[in-house]
Amino acid sequence: MKNQHLFNYIISIADNSLILGQRLGELCGHGPTLETDIAGTNIALDLIGQTRNYYQYAAKIQGGGKTEDDIAFLRLEKEYKNVLLVEQPNTHFGYVMGRQFLFDVFHLLFMNQLMQSKDDTLAAIAKKGVKEVSYHKRFSSDWIKRLGDGTPESNAKMQEAINDLWAYTDELFDQTEADKAMASEGIAVDTTKLKESYYKEVSEVLEEAKLTVPERKYFTRGGKKGVHSEYMGYILTELQYMQRTYPNMEW
Amino acid sequence: MKNQHLFNYIISIADNSLILGQRLGELCGHGPTLETDIAGTNIALDLIGQTRNYYQYAAKIQGGGKTEDDIAFLRLEKEYKNVLLVEQPNTHFGYVMGRQFLFDVFHLLFMNQLMQSKDDTLAAIAKKGVKEVSYHKRFSSDWIKRLGDGTPESNAKMQEAINDLWAYTDELFDQTEADKAMASEGIAVDTTKLKESYYKEVSEVLEEAKLTVPERKYFTRGGKKGVHSEYMGYILTELQYMQRTYPNMEW
Repeated sequence: MKNQHLFNYIISIADNSLILGQRLGELCGHGPTLETDIAGTNIALDLIGQTRNYYQYAAKIQGGGKTEDDIAFLRLEKEYKNVLLVEQPNTHFGYVMGRQFLFDVFHLLFMNQLMQSKDDTLAAIAKKGVKEVSYHKRFSSDWIKRLGDGTPESNAKMQEAINDLWAYTDELFDQTEADKAMASEGIAVDTTKLKESYYKEVSEVLEEAKLTVPERKYFTRGGKKGVHSEYMGYILTELQYMQRTYPNMEW
Repeated sequence: MKNQHLFNYIISIADNSLILGQRLGELCGHGPTLETDIAGTNIALDLIGQTRNYYQYAAKIQGGGKTEDDIAFLRLEKEYKNVLLVEQPNTHFGYVMGRQFLFDVFHLLFMNQLMQSKDDTLAAIAKKGVKEVSYHKRFSSDWIKRLGDGTPESNAKMQEAINDLWAYTDELFDQTEADKAMASEGIAVDTTKLKESYYKEVSEVLEEAKLTVPERKYFTRGGKKGVHSEYMGYILTELQYMQRTYPNMEW
């Protein structure tokens, strides 16, 4: 394939949205209130919509009659390049919102930069998605504050989630070979430059939410290289079930 | 409660949308393609959105500080008044679309009449929802034709679903005591008057889809009286889980 780096780069962005959307989708119809249920499902739909834009572009680059659905549903686990953060489970509502918040702050910084990409298609996808992501961040930040600055129990649960999920934040800024190659051409976002703003912004919200900013020196990583947590197999089983059972709906 | 009949009437409409939305929501992230997944989830969101409008109105009538979420999540099985059709399982994609289609044709006829209700709130809810339901019907009708008039296997599976689900269509036109009382005041839709149009319209689509219109003399009913199929308990377990585990999110 020509443009293998570009293909890999697009996939790695899209997979974050796909897997986070899938995790949120598991909660569809299980929200604690009708309003949160609808809000969470809408965020999932935004993410899956963004995923489609990226995969359609990737399929075009790949050629050979491949479609967005082949890319979404028919890869092996190690071929998915999402960060470990987005595959973490919906342990309780604090984890759902913590995961969302820790990703949203990164996602918005990232999209704002991707809008400047020299690749017109990626810039256009980012431009289209940035408003959605901005809404996601507002929604998740509000919940962090509401739960952090709520009852002693809600504070403790929110803190527990942030402490656990913190281990996955550093991977957001890792750069693969494809990332570096594409950044050097002005196509990819240089994520190393987002790190300082990210931790600053996250810390401000946590402090406002009366939560402690974790101090941690060791981080867990692997997803960007296709080395996933034990959860990923289950997610893919669910995700790929329909497509593998009814290939291309050809019955 | 004053207006017990009105309360019961509203609930019975809303419960159809809630349970069908919940059934569709189970597929969220499990669509056979990204596009169908998004479309199905959007329909689920429309239905849950409509449900909220009805429940908010019902909660106002009920008074005593009750909310839409109390009504949605904290009733006993026999207090849900949805028809049996909408609680039927997602056996395969033919069932999902068959159930949707058989409900959508009714739903659109119903909403068109409810827009004429002497109750201004119900008329307004119907007016707001009718475009959504019109889209749902177009979507499900298209799938009936695509699968019915597809391969021999898709035709056989679609026919199987229609044959099974047909048994639940007649209940759509049953009238409870509340229905009759409200119809006599010009508030409720007289569903008996929709029956002929319903079967005519459904038959036309099935014939266009190269499917056989089932001939059946015996129908299954009960949901409108709170007597549900064995599936309902599982649906409610899923639906009520979050609310019963974290009551009012008060942690």
